[in-house]
Amino acid sequence: MLVFVLNAGSSSLKYQLINAETSELKASGIVERIGIDGVLKHVVGENRKLTIEASIQSHKEAIELILETLTQGETKIIDSITEIQAVGHRVAHGGEFFKESTIVTDKVIKKIEELIPLAPLHNPANILGMKICRELMPNVPNVAVFDTAFHQTMPEVHFLFPVPHEDYTEHHLRKYGFHGTSHFYVSQEAIKLLDNKKESRIIVCHLGNGSSVCAVKDGKSLNTTMGLTPLGGLMMGTRSGDIDAGVIPYLMDRKGMDTHQIIDYLNKKSGILGVSGISSDLREIISAANDGDQRAQVTIDMMCNRVKKYICSYAGLLGGVDAICFTAGIGENSDLIRNKICHNLEFMGIELDNQKNQLKSNISREINRDTSKTKIFVIPTNEELVIAQDTYKLVK
Amino acid sequence: MLVFVLNAGSSSLKYQLINAETSELKASGIVERIGIDGVLKHVVGENRKLTIEASIQSHKEAIELILETLTQGETKIIDSITEIQAVGHRVAHGGEFFKESTIVTDKVIKKIEELIPLAPLHNPANILGMKICRELMPNVPNVAVFDTAFHQTMPEVHFLFPVPHEDYTEHHLRKYGFHGTSHFYVSQEAIKLLDNKKESRIIVCHLGNGSSVCAVKDGKSLNTTMGLTPLGGLMMGTRSGDIDAGVIPYLMDRKGMDTHQIIDYLNKKSGILGVSGISSDLREIISAANDGDQRAQVTIDMMCNRVKKYICSYAGLLGGVDAICFTAGIGENSDLIRNKICHNLEFMGIELDNQKNQLKSNISREINRDTSKTKIFVIPTNEELVIAQDTYKLVK
Repeated sequence: MLVFVLNAGSSSLKYQLINAETSELKASGIVERIGIDGVLKHVVGENRKLTIEASIQSHKEAIELILETLTQGETKIIDSITEIQAVGHRVAHGGEFFKESTIVTDKVIKKIEELIPLAPLHNPANILGMKICRELMPNVPNVAVFDTAFHQTMPEVHFLFPVPHEDYTEHHLRKYGFHGTSHFYVSQEAIKLLDNKKESRIIVCHLGNGSSVCAVKDGKSLNTTMGLTPLGGLMMGTRSGDIDAGVIPYLMDRKGMDTHQIIDYLNKKSGILGVSGISSDLREIISAANDGDQRAQVTIDMMCNRVKKYICSYAGLLGGVDAICFTAGIGENSDLIRNKICHNLEFMGIELDNQKNQLKSNISREINRDTSKTKIFVIPTNEELVIAQDTYKLVK
Repeated sequence: MLVFVLNAGSSSLKYQLINAETSELKASGIVERIGIDGVLKHVVGENRKLTIEASIQSHKEAIELILETLTQGETKIIDSITEIQAVGHRVAHGGEFFKESTIVTDKVIKKIEELIPLAPLHNPANILGMKICRELMPNVPNVAVFDTAFHQTMPEVHFLFPVPHEDYTEHHLRKYGFHGTSHFYVSQEAIKLLDNKKESRIIVCHLGNGSSVCAVKDGKSLNTTMGLTPLGGLMMGTRSGDIDAGVIPYLMDRKGMDTHQIIDYLNKKSGILGVSGISSDLREIISAANDGDQRAQVTIDMMCNRVKKYICSYAGLLGGVDAICFTAGIGENSDLIRNKICHNLEFMGIELDNQKNQLKSNISREINRDTSKTKIFVIPTNEELVIAQDTYKLVK
């Protein structure tokens, strides 16, 4: 079954065309700067690339252009859009209502609209994507796959914030967590690598521009670092992560900003970008540190220490850990970062093999020493495949 | 040398009279509700108690009453206040300027005044205490002992917040940490119990109404949980601890509060009080949980999980841990809490002995199994003794 996977942001659209039964990726791409000076980058299979710069003024124009690219000219993959049998949508926030993926109906869209206060930037774009696909492909079923759903198994003791209880019961304030499809996919791959161990304790480190760690017990999310919003937890490309809330009024008073400006500042100017003063891209920071930039070195150490701290704290919650998994841009590609994170954890049975860690590869692999009690895996994530497979399961 | 130790708050004063050479506690007490309907509770030695209810309208009246109580009537301990040879003041915030205790001079008071933005509630009361003591005992030297000083050894990688670097260089925004005298005292006691081990890795859990954990490497603070303010880190009696900053605008919008009201809410209505809806006093929560209150049980588990997570994360930073120490009200007295915190950490060499843990005592003791790689100690803290000894060292 051919599934069109769509991840709609406020000014961008990512997409893939996947055969959900064979996992084959037929095409993928991204439209950026919608409403500004739209750019479509389209990739056929894993090789042929095409970039179209055009005036793309709306999400609808963007999706029309994508469908055209899939069916016409040298990028043609399918004869007609009628070959697309389902559309899978990544949806940022499913609140407590959506504990799993679901077929999109008017009711479902209404419910996702109700959840906009929890994800004011993302859910509206996701809804727009669904509405456009229903209009352009009226006979094709749509499925919503939620970034929060995997974490709905977290027990109360881990999802409650330490604030008055009525904020949860009346205002839905709780830890939701994100990157759910990634944590699900990677932990499932890890369970396979553990020979389908029945009682498994896995820690997934999704380290990209946005980052989160998840403790997965017996295949279910037990705890994760992101909170009500993706600002929680780890230090990221531009986000601070969890912080002493006393920082906020202090900075407001000193910088003459209001609360929303400070939150924006913690979301967009902080983290790796803020501490280094160089970039939010860790590769540039590593390069600067290699050139002797002391602050770049401190930035790397801060970022790695925070991941290390979460790994150890989740190992404590799990009472030990069978596997630690690294995934996403940084997690999959930086042996330096993996090395720093795992350094000096032999006392708790975590032993990285430096040579295995340095081997470059784009497939799942084990990088621990043979004597390590805990396995350490690098597992390339594939959120789009999870979305395609969930979609297939619901519409087949 | 007789040292008068003073801990001045905004509407309260705690004091002790200590022989700094012998560590003997001669008298102690607290004045509460200054400016309201002042109450003095005075204890001579470790036994005789006296409560005076009087109209105590100012800190000066309070200190005059304390000195009177020490020198007159049935509570008389000394013939004259001239026997007091020095006064040691607990000062909340020494910023980056005060890395150790110091004799109080006009210049020192001016510097502590400059640090008021970092501790707007506490430093003004501390300064008031110094000024009154200099007036009432003009020939007696005063010493300032800072709650932050012990943590000044934290390296940059641990004290920087993940925000733009100029917030540190221009606005002094960093992690300072608190409970310094307690973490110092307890870690020193632990080093003695470790036979003065030269390279030591110790984690101190100061669990009271305010709580913090400190990683102490070779006798020096490496990292601690409180941040710029005492709102950071652990979930406490009424404080939330570290949080996803995205919670703040969300609650502001929903509850119609401004930022300062929300910070006040996170300081005074959250933590154990907020989640349980019962009390900030953990003893009441434990009692309610024993009576079957499910939310009280969740509160206890949340609080213990957070301490466990910090212990494990600091063990990771230290590369292993020689001793974990429990201190302060909850840490010294609740075997249930210690048990929950240490539960299931055998994989990293932490093994609590349940029987030893349950023995009641008010002296330092070891509560781990003989096979445990990590020692677990209960060590009663004594911040006032540290203040008296620091004072003695500087004025002798």
